[in-house]
Amino acid sequence: MDIRNILLGRRLANREHDDKKLGWIEAVPAMGLDCLGSSSYGPEAALTVLIPLGATGLVYLGPLMGFIIALLAILYFSYRQTLAAYPTSGGAYAVAKENLGQYPSLLAAAALMIDYVLNVAVGVSAGVGALVSAIPLLHPYILPLCLGIVAIVMIANLRGTGEAGWLFALPSYLFIACFLGVVGYGLTRIILEGNPAPVVAPPRLGPPAAAAGIWLLMHAFASGCTAMTGVEAVSNGVGSFKEPVLKNAYVTLTIIVVVLGLLLGGIATVATWIDIGAMDQTKDGYQSVLSQLVGAVAGYNAFYYVAMSSLLCILCLSANTSFVGFPRICRMVAADGYLPKSFAQPGRRLVFTAGILFLSAVAALLLVAFGGITERLIPLFAIGAFLTFTVSQVGMVVHWRRQAESHRPKLAMNAIGAASTGAALIVILFAKFTEGAWITLIAIPVTMVLLKTIKKYYVSLENELRKPGPIVIEDVEPPTVIVVTEAWNRLSERAIKFALTLSPDVVAVHLIRLGGPEMEERDQALRETWREEVEEPVAARGLKAPRLMLIPAPYRELHEPLLKLIEKLDADAPERKVAILIPETVKDKWWQGALHMNRAGKLRSQLLKFGDARLTVATVPWRLSREKTG
Amino acid sequence: MDIRNILLGRRLANREHDDKKLGWIEAVPAMGLDCLGSSSYGPEAALTVLIPLGATGLVYLGPLMGFIIALLAILYFSYRQTLAAYPTSGGAYAVAKENLGQYPSLLAAAALMIDYVLNVAVGVSAGVGALVSAIPLLHPYILPLCLGIVAIVMIANLRGTGEAGWLFALPSYLFIACFLGVVGYGLTRIILEGNPAPVVAPPRLGPPAAAAGIWLLMHAFASGCTAMTGVEAVSNGVGSFKEPVLKNAYVTLTIIVVVLGLLLGGIATVATWIDIGAMDQTKDGYQSVLSQLVGAVAGYNAFYYVAMSSLLCILCLSANTSFVGFPRICRMVAADGYLPKSFAQPGRRLVFTAGILFLSAVAALLLVAFGGITERLIPLFAIGAFLTFTVSQVGMVVHWRRQAESHRPKLAMNAIGAASTGAALIVILFAKFTEGAWITLIAIPVTMVLLKTIKKYYVSLENELRKPGPIVIEDVEPPTVIVVTEAWNRLSERAIKFALTLSPDVVAVHLIRLGGPEMEERDQALRETWREEVEEPVAARGLKAPRLMLIPAPYRELHEPLLKLIEKLDADAPERKVAILIPETVKDKWWQGALHMNRAGKLRSQLLKFGDARLTVATVPWRLSREKTG
Repeated sequence: MDIRNILLGRRLANREHDDKKLGWIEAVPAMGLDCLGSSSYGPEAALTVLIPLGATGLVYLGPLMGFIIALLAILYFSYRQTLAAYPTSGGAYAVAKENLGQYPSLLAAAALMIDYVLNVAVGVSAGVGALVSAIPLLHPYILPLCLGIVAIVMIANLRGTGEAGWLFALPSYLFIACFLGVVGYGLTRIILEGNPAPVVAPPRLGPPAAAAGIWLLMHAFASGCTAMTGVEAVSNGVGSFKEPVLKNAYVTLTIIVVVLGLLLGGIATVATWIDIGAMDQTKDGYQSVLSQLVGAVAGYNAFYYVAMSSLLCILCLSANTSFVGFPRICRMVAADGYLPKSFAQPGRRLVFTAGILFLSAVAALLLVAFGGITERLIPLFAIGAFLTFTVSQVGMVVHWRRQAESHRPKLAMNAIGAASTGAALIVILFAKFTEGAWITLIAIPVTMVLLKTIKKYYVSLENELRKPGPIVIEDVEPPTVIVVTEAWNRLSERAIKFALTLSPDVVAVHLIRLGGPEMEERDQALRETWREEVEEPVAARGLKAPRLMLIPAPYRELHEPLLKLIEKLDADAPERKVAILIPETVKDKWWQGALHMNRAGKLRSQLLKFGDARLTVATVPWRLSREKTG
Repeated sequence: MDIRNILLGRRLANREHDDKKLGWIEAVPAMGLDCLGSSSYGPEAALTVLIPLGATGLVYLGPLMGFIIALLAILYFSYRQTLAAYPTSGGAYAVAKENLGQYPSLLAAAALMIDYVLNVAVGVSAGVGALVSAIPLLHPYILPLCLGIVAIVMIANLRGTGEAGWLFALPSYLFIACFLGVVGYGLTRIILEGNPAPVVAPPRLGPPAAAAGIWLLMHAFASGCTAMTGVEAVSNGVGSFKEPVLKNAYVTLTIIVVVLGLLLGGIATVATWIDIGAMDQTKDGYQSVLSQLVGAVAGYNAFYYVAMSSLLCILCLSANTSFVGFPRICRMVAADGYLPKSFAQPGRRLVFTAGILFLSAVAALLLVAFGGITERLIPLFAIGAFLTFTVSQVGMVVHWRRQAESHRPKLAMNAIGAASTGAALIVILFAKFTEGAWITLIAIPVTMVLLKTIKKYYVSLENELRKPGPIVIEDVEPPTVIVVTEAWNRLSERAIKFALTLSPDVVAVHLIRLGGPEMEERDQALRETWREEVEEPVAARGLKAPRLMLIPAPYRELHEPLLKLIEKLDADAPERKVAILIPETVKDKWWQGALHMNRAGKLRSQLLKFGDARLTVATVPWRLSREKTG
């Protein structure tokens, strides 16, 4: 039984390809997980930066979140326009490719790819953060938990997640309900009671410190901006919507953005009123901001566990957004020749296996390198997303300018979008540079150079192989056929018989690896067998008998004397084709490989590597234990 | 530059094979290292068993060593007779094969092979034990040091050690001189001074305990017997002696045995007089018995470091005895078909690469499993050696009985040898069973079964392939040729041109991996190109034009539809041969592999695996960036 059948399910035929289109009810969980999940780590990341201020820090949370919500609103209107303009493929790569040309599109591709990888790492580590908040016992196992979740999501995606829509829908809507509920209840109590006592008091914040400097606020803003990652998912996935496409896309984008905005605003308000700050994730007793918030508003009861479970689920599943998006962008980039062709090749379950495996591997490496701690990964994040936003909006600006009719208001909207996300990007870059943003900043151009180099290779490959014009046939004289012979047996018999069907000029070559008197005797015996069992019977049939040549291989490598022989053989006909037949036993079981020398395989690959253009190498197989010996 | 050229040196031609014969001066270091090295761990191992007795233990050392020296003397005379009877190959495997048949010879082979592996592990760990005695700073690095030494000895042997005779001679004779000197000086002082004070007092032994039980003494004897391992080396290597072979072999054996006897007796005497016991190797501050002995007799001066260095060298080099012997025995066993053929294949430096690599790997695994501690490895040792002694002597007894003339005294000598080594073997087995001897006791029959299974496989392979009688030719009609075509380019042109030289019946097959309207357009374009660029020009030359067939591959695996097509194509001629030509780009650089899908390679191996006997698979190569595009 093949292990792959158990893990991945039976292979799927092309006609089983299920291009399921989504309405907005399915699209919100499918495309919104990344975005909604960021509501949990965005405010948390901003508060983490404010830790040194102690209780004073909370004063700044409201304004910071207000700023971010405003940015979100701008992005919302900008992306509505993108959707309207590109209702089949509105992703940043496609928009940049069409409007800005090669390099900006590669910039968008590199930024998107890096953003997707980081989204997996951040989503999973934040999910595990939520889990260890609820079950502190698990705190020592943060990294193994992270890697385990990546492995599960990877296998689920290798199987294909087509049928698992409810898997995403259930926790998504549960999450929205729970957290809008918590925030709503909290706000109601604040309004009714003025200054309500928390059900479970959050840990005390540090003593109030002096007012924040501008540097710290930029920093907190930059961290909080991670809340906005994932907004681009709808535009990237616009091809998947049901008719009416645009309406469905609008509704989906609206729901996602409005829920995110409500959550961000609500969390900021409630946290400010009940004095909830961030804690250090590396320390025991760590609780995430949302965990403290639910505890303070509703207490540690069954609801707490339901809410935290839904959060854990959507964080882990938010990694799934990358597993949908990353292989898709890689496929587009590979189809354009900037990535290896295997990224464009559907695997046994019709998903893009190469992209899924690559994403999992890189995300796992990142998690290991950063110990699975969200806070350490945050500085690398957001840059990719904001770069994507900016490139995409700039592309839209060019798009509107190119239109025949004037689109001033739309152009202005996208220009505002580009300017504000660009400004935010610059703030993030400055604030986070030394903390890790430099890694992303190096990774993006390195990725671009890599993409460009791959393209260059494929172009030169195509040029090398391109055939201008019809076939040119010089002659169709049969080739010289050389049969590599180890001994006279059924396998060499089969090879000789096949050789006789190809050409009258057959030469059997026996390569002598070692010298010595014993060997000479053996060689002599082979010569005699050959004369009796091959040459005479073949000649008796009126055919030209295959000669046997014994050639020494002084370095025990067989291809060298063989290639020399070929040069000599056809010295008078330098254009004549040569077919080398190598008899080979085909193994059925893995352990058989250890008992055979694989001389045939080595000889074959060396002949292919060192031979010239006249040479063709053929394998005459004998399937061990599976041939009828007749 | 190939890394192998740097590590291993340039490859050697067969004619460079240097079968250097040895006189006794070179033979003593080449064959005696294992045996002389055991003088250091034999007494130590016996004393380690006696640790619980404290100072009382030393009382038993003299008698135990006396017993072992007596056994050594018996073995000496027995082996002299073996050498005389088998002056070209006196090894246990050869003697057992000739006189006792298959199973005893496999028993000898398995015992020898295991003994060689253990000798590497024990020699190296004892060498490192000597090193950390001299430089206690290195104590935490026992295992890495062991593995490093195995790696160095491995590489030296992969290069071939032919030219490095002095490397062995120098430390061997230095060792003999130093330790015979130490022992002699110690004995002189004992005789002159009665009870001399040690220069550096060895650590105090534990308080005297009650007299030893028989069990403990058997145990100490069993451990001490490891001192005798390596005596068989001369008989195994008798083929390497210069003329007069027998005289050289006798002298070598005599020197080795006499020096070993002197060392064992001297060490026992001096250690008893100055109260030197064994220490625990796992503890810091560990010193080997020989280190204490040299310190007590001569002090920690320059001489101490010279002596200990020579000991370290010969222990590490004693592993080399295995690296010479193991590949040689494996080669003999492989030549008889009991081991994979690769063990009989000389590598680029004309050494038996497979045996050397296998020995290194297994020894390294053993060292890791046992933490590099000699004492833990000792119980596994000796069994193999004594089993080899016994089988070899029994073989000799049979040998003498088969002779026409009577050889009573010789037969008696070998019988005494067989009986005494057999008895020792039983004592070792009992005494060491629970400490690890059971591992060897399981490993030997498991190895035998493995050897026998391999032989069975080769016999059935030979039966399957054996060709009784002359070639049978039914017909020589040209085969159907199928050319796998991805696109119309230089590579497929080359394949078609080659196909036309083989047969008038050429079919080009294009496999459609994915469906969709875009693909249909592309397929249509290929059809048209094919008609214009291939079919029409070929027909214009008066040849039968190759048809193009487009076949869907619903599971994206190309071999299935291809095999079905072949069945259909030749439904009317079920015996007709089929040649499948697969065009393939041949890569020059390692990274090119990542940019190509290796579809050709996969298709090839699956066709070979699943195809039937009529099928031959040929590769038409295009050497990337190395073809003159003409």
